This record gives sequence, structure tokens and C-alpha cells, in this order.
Amino acid sequence: MERPRHQGMAKNTYMRWRLPLVCLLWEVAMIVLFGVFVRFSPEADAHWEEEKHKMNLTSDMENDFYFRYPSFQDVHVMIFVGFGFLMTFLKRYGFGAVGFNFLLAAFGIQWALLMQGWFHSFKSGKILIGVENLINADFCVGSVCIAFGAILGKTSPIQLLIMTLFQVTLFAVNEYILLNLLHVKDAGGSMTIHTFGAYFGLTVTRILYRPNLEQSKDKQGSVYHSDLFAMIGTLYLWMYWPSFNSAISDHGDAQHRAAINTYCSLAACVLTTMAFSSMLQKKGKLDMVHIQNATLAGGVAVGTSAEMMLTPYGSLIVGFICGIVSTVGYVYLTPFLESRLHIQDTCGIHNLHAMPGLIGGIVGAITAAAATEDVYGKEGFIKAFDFTGAYQMRTPGVQGGFQAAGIVVSLLMAFAGGAIVGAILKLPVWGDAAAENCFEDDIYWEV
Amino acid sequence: MERPRHQGMAKNTYMRWRLPLVCLLWEVAMIVLFGVFVRFSPEADAHWEEEKHKMNLTSDMENDFYFRYPSFQDVHVMIFVGFGFLMTFLKRYGFGAVGFNFLLAAFGIQWALLMQGWFHSFKSGKILIGVENLINADFCVGSVCIAFGAILGKTSPIQLLIMTLFQVTLFAVNEYILLNLLHVKDAGGSMTIHTFGAYFGLTVTRILYRPNLEQSKDKQGSVYHSDLFAMIGTLYLWMYWPSFNSAISDHGDAQHRAAINTYCSLAACVLTTMAFSSMLQKKGKLDMVHIQNATLAGGVAVGTSAEMMLTPYGSLIVGFICGIVSTVGYVYLTPFLESRLHIQDTCGIHNLHAMPGLIGGIVGAITAAAATEDVYGKEGFIKAFDFTGAYQMRTPGVQGGFQAAGIVVSLLMAFAGGAIVGAILKLPVWGDAAAENCFEDDIYWEV
Amino acid sequence: MERPRHQGMAKNTYMRWRLPLVCLLWEVAMIVLFGVFVRFSPEADAHWEEEKHKMNLTSDMENDFYFRYPSFQDVHVMIFVGFGFLMTFLKRYGFGAVGFNFLLAAFGIQWALLMQGWFHSFKSGKILIGVENLINADFCVGSVCIAFGAILGKTSPIQLLIMTLFQVTLFAVNEYILLNLLHVKDAGGSMTIHTFGAYFGLTVTRILYRPNLEQSKDKQGSVYHSDLFAMIGTLYLWMYWPSFNSAISDHGDAQHRAAINTYCSLAACVLTTMAFSSMLQKKGKLDMVHIQNATLAGGVAVGTSAEMMLTPYGSLIVGFICGIVSTVGYVYLTPFLESRLHIQDTCGIHNLHAMPGLIGGIVGAITAAAATEDVYGKEGFIKAFDFTGAYQMRTPGVQGGFQAAGIVVSLLMAFAGGAIVGAILKLPVWGDAAAENCFEDDIYWEV
Repeated sequence: MERPRHQGMAKNTYMRWRLPLVCLLWEVAMIVLFGVFVRFSPEADAHWEEEKHKMNLTSDMENDFYFRYPSFQDVHVMIFVGFGFLMTFLKRYGFGAVGFNFLLAAFGIQWALLMQGWFHSFKSGKILIGVENLINADFCVGSVCIAFGAILGKTSPIQLLIMTLFQVTLFAVNEYILLNLLHVKDAGGSMTIHTFGAYFGLTVTRILYRPNLEQSKDKQGSVYHSDLFAMIGTLYLWMYWPSFNSAISDHGDAQHRAAINTYCSLAACVLTTMAFSSMLQKKGKLDMVHIQNATLAGGVAVGTSAEMMLTPYGSLIVGFICGIVSTVGYVYLTPFLESRLHIQDTCGIHNLHAMPGLIGGIVGAITAAAATEDVYGKEGFIKAFDFTGAYQMRTPGVQGGFQAAGIVVSLLMAFAGGAIVGAILKLPVWGDAAAENCFEDDIYWEV
Repeated sequence: MERPRHQGMAKNTYMRWRLPLVCLLWEVAMIVLFGVFVRFSPEADAHWEEEKHKMNLTSDMENDFYFRYPSFQDVHVMIFVGFGFLMTFLKRYGFGAVGFNFLLAAFGIQWALLMQGWFHSFKSGKILIGVENLINADFCVGSVCIAFGAILGKTSPIQLLIMTLFQVTLFAVNEYILLNLLHVKDAGGSMTIHTFGAYFGLTVTRILYRPNLEQSKDKQGSVYHSDLFAMIGTLYLWMYWPSFNSAISDHGDAQHRAAINTYCSLAACVLTTMAFSSMLQKKGKLDMVHIQNATLAGGVAVGTSAEMMLTPYGSLIVGFICGIVSTVGYVYLTPFLESRLHIQDTCGIHNLHAMPGLIGGIVGAITAAAATEDVYGKEGFIKAFDFTGAYQMRTPGVQGGFQAAGIVVSLLMAFAGGAIVGAILKLPVWGDAAAENCFEDDIYWEV
Repeated sequence: MERPRHQGMAKNTYMRWRLPLVCLLWEVAMIVLFGVFVRFSPEADAHWEEEKHKMNLTSDMENDFYFRYPSFQDVHVMIFVGFGFLMTFLKRYGFGAVGFNFLLAAFGIQWALLMQGWFHSFKSGKILIGVENLINADFCVGSVCIAFGAILGKTSPIQLLIMTLFQVTLFAVNEYILLNLLHVKDAGGSMTIHTFGAYFGLTVTRILYRPNLEQSKDKQGSVYHSDLFAMIGTLYLWMYWPSFNSAISDHGDAQHRAAINTYCSLAACVLTTMAFSSMLQKKGKLDMVHIQNATLAGGVAVGTSAEMMLTPYGSLIVGFICGIVSTVGYVYLTPFLESRLHIQDTCGIHNLHAMPGLIGGIVGAITAAAATEDVYGKEGFIKAFDFTGAYQMRTPGVQGGFQAAGIVVSLLMAFAGGAIVGAILKLPVWGDAAAENCFEDDIYWEV
């Protein structure tokens, strides 16, 4: 059993039986559920040859694999290396950052394949999975990685697994409401991934508020090389974000456009981040925290609209604003949230995901509401917003309204879900560390 | 000449003339052999326009480049960054890990292009290379990187180049026996790459046994940041393994399926690795060695079967088992192999590649034997196992038997080849360091 | 205001108003110019559905996005992680290396989209951008990253932004002269990117000559882990260079061939680099500086010819030579340039980009001059050199001559441009550090 360094706050962080039990039981559950439900989609099944004849396809190139696999791999890198390394900035929590992110994401993608599968890929009793499902599972887990950023260093691996279980479930429900019931567009997940994930995580960390956290304040900082490790995470997120926002868009122009818009928004965001990082500091020096995080806000904020006709200059404007909002958030809002609202947000996800996610939802609503047949072309207009079937009479203005409703639903789901899950995680049986042992790898790792 | 720190075991590790001579002579040999033999495949040759007419192709998209290049780049990253950084965990051997891996792989891919070319791409006196050859060359070198893991820190760069020369040669022979003579399927190389590479390396390190290696025991550990560097390697191997196992599968469903199966197997493997890492440790803490390595065993173990109809839950089961086997191996088998069998396995390749490779071969044999026309479809069945020409009467059961034979052949080739190459490397002229100078960069590098 | 450590050379490195002003004003200018000029290309525009009908395309796969996006992402990684981390080798300048590279590249790609757009993608008053424009913008910025290597550690971020503004402009002019007026082939940019970028940077650093730079000599070295961070940059450049040289080649065989040639050249280069690194050192030990840099020269040197029928063995020869030239350059030429010609070249770009770039231009000229219809096929010959329209009578010999002229033009542009820009950067208002504070992050960064 771990002996805490100081007296008085001894907590049982011993993981030996609890962690293995959770991991093994849950993995067995996954195997059983996969056995009952999960099969290959026609494009991944050995019957594909017959399928090709049926669909009159002449080339294997028409297999969705070739449209999406490169983007999938970029997204995969963002989840595991991007988020994992972004959080290694803490001087003594690198193992936890990369390792626990690895653990929760590996579990989360399995559970997400099931949850999202039941909602979206369920056919005659089976979930049929292909490359798009893998991307969506990674997306879903992305929202958990975001929430992890708020509680980084303060939770046990078991708490993280429990949070993952519930958050993935709620994510899938929220996503279903938005995409299927409200018929909202959100290919890059400004609402479903960022807004939901961030406010969920902020609610959880609020409920897990630790009044004595200043006891581990000395460990909350970075050292020179830990900041360089974190830059690996930053850059991979930044570079591959165009793939993230375009990964599940329609084939052809939509994917193409989403990548370009995201590229533009991110480029602008770097300049305003640098500007405000220097400006808000008495000595005028740049702060690595801002460079590591706020430079990414531009990608978050075009998550909904990137596949629409946002245009390159529209993207620049969004990125311009978000670099500022995010950097200002790090300087003024994060301390305020901690001191006044008791929201201890280790990575500042409020600045990187919550606010830019909201902006992204709003930009998406406006861009949708402003859509015209002139700008999109007759066919393009219908295809872009999927105004077919039951939705063929929906107008851009109405679509904009539903998009806005999607933001509200995501927020409500995040607050309610975060409150419940936070309460569960507060139970004193999950092995989290005492306040003076937070942000320290040697509680859970052999160092 | 290098002065060893302690008296008595002085060894000549001076590389100034030996290393340049080997590098330059061998590279000249490559140039001559490439000049005589290597040309572009029709899809990379400027005559492609005429080829397109001949083959009645209407789109450049049908060029194999677009089917395989993204996977090729992922595999390339695995070989150079994945294996290179995975081995940087040693506190004072980061340059050797990344640098020597770089050297041997850069030489190895050239020699592999020739060796594999003679066996598989030889047409009217010329080896015709395209993107698939590049992938296969990387694969072949992968088996050398694996063997390098066993002798990491104990060999000179010249020894590594010599081992590469012989191992690539034997790899190509073994691969030819399996793929062409036994007509075995092994797209992700459980047998040809992992089983062969690992047992080859283990045999070599057995023969190079160093009785006094405990003299450098203090340098065999890691430091905090070296473990983070190693996690870069781990994650890139883990993330891109779906590309590895699908890179040379048939176009369409086979590539698609191989990626999904591997993704599933790897996800499950992470959970059981974490579980057993914690469980097998008195204090219940996680061990970075396990996280860095055993999490990858799931990728190794579906190397043969990933392109088959293993199914997602089948993949989860394989990953589940391999995370356990591999972690248990690190805790109990590695010390046993060292103390009883005198096998000093620096990176524990027995746990990451040898045992999971064997499991992968067996899983492949079973999956092949269990194949039915019902599961694969009539056309899919023939295509999946290439039951055409001389093999059109082969049954799944027989195929399973040949798959099993492939494991045995790979093992025999590995033991015999490893013994011969180990004996050659034992000659006292290659400039390896004394036992007390192992695992230390400043023998071969300016530090 | 920053207090320099030593008396006497106090310089005002205070960035608080200057840097934000430049960043914000320039970004606003970008938004305005993008608003006036930049729109989506037909393949990224929502009218694509109609476009498909018009062009008689039956599949979304024919969208250029799928031909080039994977290569684009690889190039993107090279620019931001490759160049960024390659320059982290300095022990106390990691933030500046990665962070300033990030800043200048993020600005540069926007300005490059405009400049290159006006020259190459301007249609009825609008610049129409697609994935190829993103690649070209990254390429253009690559030449700025190269020049940054020469002045690394000695300039303020404002100087870097100013250099980027001018260098991108000149790059676009030079590129236009070469590609459009001289009708020269240079898909991988041996001339436009490397020769131009390197000699431009060397001229700038010559003009910014600092006689007292030895005052910060102790900070110009590396430490163990900074060298490992740099190897991340090296390996990503090395692995993805085949994508770089093939990214904008013609669809089909040209992209395929360019990747293979580059792969071969880089492999050979590693062996001769290792050979000469050991040979030129009295103790025969390998030098990380060479491994980090000279191993890449082979990619630079096939930048012009990779898409031509250089052949694999031709590529090996080029790589063989460049590994030697580059390593010898690091050992003998860099000190000579500094002591005799007062060219202080922090990263040794003369060895990695300048000389190999020249060689690349020459190899390209020779390969073009040696082209025959026999080797390329009738159609392939015309397609490879775009001998259509006004150029349909051009012979290979003449093409070779124009290629050679391209080298000369690039050199002249680099020298003239570098001299002018160097003079501008010499003005004492841009906030560069005193000689004793060079190569130190804490001038511009919170550390």
C-alpha cells in the first residue's frame, strides 16, 4: 500500500486488485457483446466480391476504406499521440498522461463501437462495422480525452475507466439526438465532441473539487523537456486537424473543403495566439502553455462548419478570434474559474475546447442558416445538408435553428451527465490520491 | 582507440576504418546490383500510359500506388520511428537505439529489395519494383529490428550490419518457402517476420552470451524521460499496426478487414496488459516496460489471420490472451531465460514477438482450417486463400496444416540461421564492447 | 524589459508591443486579401456535383483530394515536426526552434497561398485553392524553414516574420520564372526550395554576421536528450521525403516513381553518412550532427529528378555522393565558412540544403537532357516533360539547358534577395538579442 508523504491525508491508492478486476471484467464483457453483436460491414466482409457485382462497382477503389483510411490514421494519431503527449507537460506526470490516456482510449473505442453501433449501424440484429465506425469510435473517445484534461493528475485509473464508460454512453445518446433527431450537421464535432466533452469534464472536476490542491502546486508546473514532449502532442493535433474535421464528411468536395477550411483556421489561430501570449505578459515573453493549447482552438471552432461553404477567409476569421479568446481564457479565466467557481481545470480545457466548441456550434448554425442554392449549387445544397426524405422541405434558416438547439442539448447533456458521473467518482472507493500526492506518477507507476 | 573504464577486459571498439569500409563497400555492391537488376515496375515506369491502354484502365487511381502508399508510409514510420524509439528506453543508449536501427534498416531495405525481388518480382532478368516491394522490404527489415532488440546495447554497428546481411537473406528464403512452396497466407507476418525474427535474435543473443553482463547492470535501466521517448515508439507501432497487417493484403475487403481486426486486437491487449502489470506487482503499480511492449502483442498475434474472417470478437480474444501472455513473460520468463538458458534478451522480444508470433501462426492455421464458403462467399473464399491454379483443390483443413508447417519451418530457419550468424558474430574482430561498457553510447558515439 | 546578463551589449529584446502588432496587423491583412481573392477550387466547392457531370466523372475518387491528401499530410508533418524538431538539438533553444518555426510557417503558408495563387491559380479575379495549393504553400514555407536554420538562435520572432514575408514573395517570383517562363521541371524543389532557400538564408546570415558570437559558444552545443528530440525531426523528414518529392507530380506513374527514387537515394545516403562520420573523426566515433542532417541530403538531391526516369540505381548513386559531400561539409566547410567568410550557419544548411540542392539541380538537368522516347515511351515522354503547346518542339537537350538555367536563376534570386532582406533585418529595431544571449530561450520565452 502506498505510504503518502505527509501525515493525515492517507488515502488508499493501492490498485493491485481493483484495477485488474475492472480491466479484465470489462474486457470480457466487450468480448461477449462483440460476439453477440459485431460483424464486418459489407465493405470489409469477404462477401465484398458479390457486393461489388450487386452495386455495379468496377473497382476496389470504391471501397470506403480508400476514401477514409488515411484520415482515420491521422485521427488515431491525434487521439493517442496528440492528446497523450499534449498532457505530458507536467513535470512528474508524463507516464500518467500518456499511459492513462492510452488505457481509457483503448477501452473507450471498444465501448464506442458498440454504443454508436447500436444507434447508427444496427442491421438485422448485428452491428456492421467498417472504417467509418473506427473513426467515429476514435471521435467519441476524443471527448473523453478532453474531459481527462480537466482532471489530469487528480484521479485514479479506475475513476478514468468509469468516467469513460459513462461518458461514451452519454456521448452516443447525445450524438444520436443531434444527428438523427435534430438532423444537425457536426462532422468535426464542435458540439458533440468538444462542447459536450469539455463541459462534461468541467462539471466532473467541479464536483471532485479539492480544496487543498495547492499542497501539490509545486508539481503542477512543467520542466523544459516536458514542455517539448507536450509540443509533440500539440503539433500532431495541429497538423492532423484537417483530417479530423474532414474524416467523416461526404466523399469528394466535402472532405476536400473541410480540410482546406481547417488548415486556414488553424494557421490564423497561431498568429493571434502568439500575439496575445506576448501582449498579456508584462515582460512580453511567450508562454508555452498558450502555444501548446490556444493554437489548436481554430481547429475546434470550425468543427461544425468546416465541411460547409465557410470559405477560406471565413475560416481565417474564426481562427483569428479563437486564438484570442483561448489565450485570454488561459490568462484570466482559468484562475477565475479555480478561485471563484472551484473548477480546477488542469489543462485548461475550458479555453481550448469549451469556448471554442461553443463558438464552433454558433459558427455552424450561422453558416447553415446563411446557406443558399446559389452558393452550393442545386445538388450541392441538398447533399451538403442532406435535405432529403423527411427533411426535404427544411430551409437553411430552420436548419440554423436546429443547429443552435444542438448546442443547447449538448450543454445540458454535459452538465447533467457530468454531475451524475462526478458524484459516482466522488465515492471514496476508487483509489484516488490525496491532495499532496496529485500530479505525481509514483502513486500509480513504478518510477 | 577507446579506453575501457575498468582494467582487464579491454576490447578494441575502434570503428574508424572498419565501419566506413563495410558501409562503403556494401553500398557500392548495392549500386552495382541495382544497376544490373533493378528497374521500375510497369506502374512506376514512364511507359504506364501505354500500360493503361493495354490493361484497359481508365483512371490513374487504379495504379497500385494509391491502394498502398498510405499504408507504406505508416509501415515506414513503424520501422524507423517505432522500433527506433521503442528501444530508447535505456538511459544511456538512445543514440545507439535510434541511430543503429536507422543504419541497419537503411542498408537492409536495399538488400531486401534485391533478395525478395529475385524470389518474387523477377521478370526477364530484371527485378521490377513498385510500392508493394517497398513495403515488403520494410517488413523484411522489421524482422531484423526485432532481432536487434535482443542484442541491443551489446553489439557493434558492424556486427549489426553483418547480422542484417544474413538475416535478410534467410528471411527471403524462408518467406519464399512459406508463401510460394507451402502456399501459406501470412500478410502481417506473424510467422515470417515475428516468429522468425524473434527466434533468430534469441538464438544470436544466446550464442553471444556474456557471463559478466551484470557489470553494466546499472546502465540497463531507464530514466524518466527515456521512458517517454520509448512511448513515442510504442504508440506509433500501436497506432499504425492496422496499416502493417493490411498493407499487402488484397485490394478491397481484405485490406479493410485486416485493419479492423488489428485495431480490435490491439485495443483488447492494452486492457489485459494493464491488468496483469498491476496484478503481478506487489505494490500494484504499473510498469512502463509492460505498457511499452506487451500492449503491442495483439498486433503481432493477428499478423497471419487479420485478413481472414477472424471477426472483431475473435480479434478481441486474441488480443486479450496476448496481453496476458506477454506481460507474464516479462515478469517471469525473461529472468528465467537469462538465468537458466543464458538468453540475455535486452528488450524482451521473447515476450513481444516470439510468443505472440507463435500464437499468431497458430491462430492463422486455425482460422484458415475453419474457413467455409458460407462465411467467405464462393468468390471470396477462393480469393482469400488464393485457391487457384495448382491450389484450386486445396481444402481449408489442408491449408490449416500447411499454415502450421509454416510455423515449424520458420522456427527451424530461425534456430539454424541464428546459430550460424551468432557464431560469425562471435569472432573477436567486429569491435563489440566489453561487458562493463555495454548499454553505453559513448563507445561508438561522440557524446 | 529584458536585462542582459552581461554589461555593455544591452539590447532591447522587449517584444510586448512589437510582436503582437506585427502578428495582428498581418493576420488582418491576410483576412482582407483572402476575402477579396481566395475561393475554393472546383474540386473543393459545393458545385462539385455539377462539375462531375460536366467532366464526365463517375466517381468521387477522381477528386484530386484522394490523389494528394496523404502526401500533403506527410509534407505538413515535415514542415512542422520535421523542421521544428530537427532544430531542437540546441540545449537551450528548443522552444524557439519548435515555436518560431511554428509561427513563421503558420504565417508563411497563408502568404504563400496568395503569392503562388496569383501566379498559378488565378482565374477571373479569384485564386481557386485545392489540396495542391496547400502542398505548394507548405513547400514554399519549407524554403523559409531552411533559411531559418542558418540564423537559428540569433534572431527575434519579428525578424523571422519579416524574412518570411519577403522570402515567400521572392520564392513565388523565382518559382514562376522557373516553372512558367523557363518551363523547368522541379517537383521536389531541389532548385526552388533547397538551392534558393539555403543560399538565401546563408546570404542573410552573412549580412547579420555577429563578430562576438563566441560569447554564447557554450550554448551552441546539444545535450543528450536534445539530440534525441532532434532525431524525431530527422526521422520524420527522412521517412516522409518520398511523399515530399512525389506530392505534386503527375498522377499515376510519376508519383509512384518519385517515391521509389527518393526512397532509394535516402537509403544509400545513410550508409555513406555513417561511413564518413566515423572516418573523419580521429576516434572513429559517430557524430549525431551528421546523422541528424547529412542522412537527409539524398532526399534534397533527387528533388528535381525523382519524378524522371532516374532509375533506382541512379538514385543510389546520387544518395551515395550526397551523404559524403554533406558530411565532409559539416567537418571541413562549416568551420571554414564561419572563420573565413563570416557565414555563421547554425544548423549547417550549406551542407544539408545548399550543396545537395545544387547537385539536385545538376542531376535534374542531366537526367532531362538524357531522356529519350525509348526510355519514357512516346506518350510518357511528352507527359513527363510537358512537351505540349508552345513547348512541343523542345528537345531533351534544350530542356537540360533550361534546367541548368533554373539553377543559375535560383542562385541569383537567393543572393540578391538575401542581401536586401539581410539589410532590412540588420536595422536595430527588430529586437534581436545581444551576442551573449543568443541560443537561449529565456530571452523570448517564459522558462
